[in-house]
Amino acid sequence: MSGVLFSRVCIVGVGLIGGSLARAARERGLIGEVVGCSRNAGHLQRAVELGVIDRYSTDLAEAVAGADLVVIATPLGAIRRVLEGIAGHLAEGALITDVGSAKGSVVRDAREVFGGLPPIFVPGHPIAGTENSGVEASFPELFRERRVILTPVEETDPAATARVRALWEGVGAEVVEMSVEHHDEVLAATSHLPHVVAFSLVDTLARLNDRVEIFRYAAGGFRDFTRIASSDPVMWRDICLANREALLKILDDFRADLDRVRSAIERGDGDWLRDTFAAAKRARDDYSA
Amino acid sequence: MSGVLFSRVCIVGVGLIGGSLARAARERGLIGEVVGCSRNAGHLQRAVELGVIDRYSTDLAEAVAGADLVVIATPLGAIRRVLEGIAGHLAEGALITDVGSAKGSVVRDAREVFGGLPPIFVPGHPIAGTENSGVEASFPELFRERRVILTPVEETDPAATARVRALWEGVGAEVVEMSVEHHDEVLAATSHLPHVVAFSLVDTLARLNDRVEIFRYAAGGFRDFTRIASSDPVMWRDICLANREALLKILDDFRADLDRVRSAIERGDGDWLRDTFAAAKRARDDYSA
Repeated sequence: MSGVLFSRVCIVGVGLIGGSLARAARERGLIGEVVGCSRNAGHLQRAVELGVIDRYSTDLAEAVAGADLVVIATPLGAIRRVLEGIAGHLAEGALITDVGSAKGSVVRDAREVFGGLPPIFVPGHPIAGTENSGVEASFPELFRERRVILTPVEETDPAATARVRALWEGVGAEVVEMSVEHHDEVLAATSHLPHVVAFSLVDTLARLNDRVEIFRYAAGGFRDFTRIASSDPVMWRDICLANREALLKILDDFRADLDRVRSAIERGDGDWLRDTFAAAKRARDDYSA
Repeated sequence: MSGVLFSRVCIVGVGLIGGSLARAARERGLIGEVVGCSRNAGHLQRAVELGVIDRYSTDLAEAVAGADLVVIATPLGAIRRVLEGIAGHLAEGALITDVGSAKGSVVRDAREVFGGLPPIFVPGHPIAGTENSGVEASFPELFRERRVILTPVEETDPAATARVRALWEGVGAEVVEMSVEHHDEVLAATSHLPHVVAFSLVDTLARLNDRVEIFRYAAGGFRDFTRIASSDPVMWRDICLANREALLKILDDFRADLDRVRSAIERGDGDWLRDTFAAAKRARDDYSA
């Protein structure tokens, strides 16, 4: 379909997302050489052995040299440091994109590090992932039929956005564009809030005295419900901090709703509970239809 | 292995659980004739067509006549009415068991209806189910390698408990016995709380203005997390009311934990968030190992 879109790609953070993008784009012939970068040479060596990257450097300036695309796929909390490390070392015409789960903080960091948002920086977020992490968990089909959100801002060069879009479409994703603010609100609701709630709920049960027995009697629904509590704690710490405002807003909505449910249980209001549960069931069934 | 354990079984409420028990026990030759009972003749007719039951009556007294086992598999809120309908109509030597997700309320109801708990009543609860309901969703493997909790009380005849245990073991379940109070606490934590939280969370999102778009960007983790919000609203209303005390207690623990997470996000306490998420991840990973 398309030929080679980028002749040398530097992937900073070769984990589930970075590794899967490298695998998918190589498999489809969309990219040439792949250079990995992270602080952990052991992980990078493993990525070479797995055929995910061609070579690596733990030095950012060295890793991005000559690359025409830099993909920042580290946890959110490391993005600012990465931007600082690559500023001044990019090749002429190189693009930058990222895969961070919150976009306001990334755009803010980029503005500060570069003294204004570089037109070649295309903020992005693939809505894909599993509860597993690391390059060993990466696989080329991860983005197939998944949505990737790009949040170009006023300063972003439309040609840069188009090239990053082509890469994601090339690996099977559906690309949509929206504002940074809207992205952060939508993701706070559909992803960040559920993760915080799942972590909290498992933590509540784990702190009970009879925790071992408690978990013994958990059924399939519990297993599904709490799967996301197996996600990477550092990644989710970073997301909570990066998308703090939007997350606190939806978290407060949820607490108010939960309080309403609590008081209906307390006063024995069966009709209210049935109607509320039925409305939730309809919304969930519509969504999964 | 075992021969016929009960020669005529009356299943009151031929839905997912009652239907699956009938299918499994018939398939294994553990029971003879199966008589269905509910208020809806159409559902019962469908159960006959599916081969789940042999015949039916919408009249409780008629349905239980001559049965040596009555399985009450209605929603919790209907159990008291069923007990009232069968009292005085049971055959000599007949046993009663139920599958209610809360046991304190059932035992209380039985005590009141019969003027003391009949020794032939064995309160039970299979920890099995799916988010689907109704006889169409029933299947004979539902209980295989699942736990069934029996909560015999002081008055319960050990021989009755042993016979009900044999039926559940015969359909592949692992039977454990515990006190009514302990059952209700354990289930409040592992099942009732997660369902209430999932219903509440989906309700929160469904009430947002941009709800359609919100759900569009939900990923796989969200789908798993909210699956239990597709459960039957009437069943869950009944559970919330029946297990009110234990549920409110664990719900308050959860709200306190969630408030702690909220305040850590607000004050930007990354270390606390990482440690809490990591503890939850360990507990979840241990559980699923």
